[in-house]
Amino acid sequence: MDLLKKLQWRYATKRMNGTKVPKDKLDVILQAIQLAPTSIGIQPFKVFVVESEDVRKKIHAAACPQPQVLEGSHLLVFAAREALTNDEVDEYINRIAKTRNVPVESLAEFKKMVMSVQGMSTDDYFTWAAKQTYIALGLGMVGAAEVEVDSTPMEGFSAPAMDEVLGLRAKGYRSTVLLALGYRDNKTDYLVNAAKVRKPIGNLFETI
Amino acid sequence: MDLLKKLQWRYATKRMNGTKVPKDKLDVILQAIQLAPTSIGIQPFKVFVVESEDVRKKIHAAACPQPQVLEGSHLLVFAAREALTNDEVDEYINRIAKTRNVPVESLAEFKKMVMSVQGMSTDDYFTWAAKQTYIALGLGMVGAAEVEVDSTPMEGFSAPAMDEVLGLRAKGYRSTVLLALGYRDNKTDYLVNAAKVRKPIGNLFETI
Repeated sequence: MDLLKKLQWRYATKRMNGTKVPKDKLDVILQAIQLAPTSIGIQPFKVFVVESEDVRKKIHAAACPQPQVLEGSHLLVFAAREALTNDEVDEYINRIAKTRNVPVESLAEFKKMVMSVQGMSTDDYFTWAAKQTYIALGLGMVGAAEVEVDSTPMEGFSAPAMDEVLGLRAKGYRSTVLLALGYRDNKTDYLVNAAKVRKPIGNLFETI
Repeated sequence: MDLLKKLQWRYATKRMNGTKVPKDKLDVILQAIQLAPTSIGIQPFKVFVVESEDVRKKIHAAACPQPQVLEGSHLLVFAAREALTNDEVDEYINRIAKTRNVPVESLAEFKKMVMSVQGMSTDDYFTWAAKQTYIALGLGMVGAAEVEVDSTPMEGFSAPAMDEVLGLRAKGYRSTVLLALGYRDNKTDYLVNAAKVRKPIGNLFETI
């Protein structure tokens, strides 16, 4: 199986060698993230693709001292929404109508269901939206493996500091998780030849 | 790109036709979930693979009235841990040592880092663990698409009722998200030919 081979190949790369990821490969990774499913299809997040060395230096200094931030090619910052506005709902419903060539009126029931999540508190909505970013993170990692780009998912950062550097709160977002993209440094990465450690199938799954 | 084609092919299947997923395909899906990365590699969850028609009927009646529960072949119930016990930490550290053939003592610093998450409250730990299940959910969906099995991620269920049916709380787990596996019913699924709706790349991503 091709997918399983790719998942075996990937690992949380600790040190990267600075090589740039070419645009065509980056595009595949972003498209995999775009195609990630989300609850009610709302995609309640944005992904900031940080290529600027200057901004990555600021992030490294203020929010995430891990070497991949500087040694990687691009740093993806997943940021979830804190609330669902009426404008977002309308944009979504209109997009469905246009994409599927159906009248907006036929989506009235679905629209009601989408709007029902507006009843959540800001914290609950953010937590729910944050979970959706983890699906997208997973698909981004598979996308990277598909084009043989290394990637490192990272939770070990200061979200408030990241939000500050990128001005996220003012835009209604909060950072949730990072994905560094680049290429493994065979000389300095101690994990480069390490065997993958996972729970055995019999422990991770229970058949009923 | 093969992966993108597969992600285009998959969709949240609304109606399934009852056909069984063969064991070799199920195994690929479970292995993709097994290979999903998690924070500090702890895999703080279990996946209950519900094949029993009787149990699926109970789940349909009590926790999740969606038709895929009955029409699908298997229902995967992702369930996150509420806490990290010392036994789990020891099992994990011993597994790393054995898999990588290194002395347990060499992992002392890493073990300290792993144990530091024990400081979280039960709710915070569960929320963190729940996010990890969403990465695994994403990889499970890609695994299903890889072997041309349809899948439907579902959040619309009563977690307390599900936990009750499967006796999860007594085992230290709470259900987080479901993945129904099976085959699309071309006759009854209104989404079977629907175009995929996603935010445009220019809206979902911001390059910095």
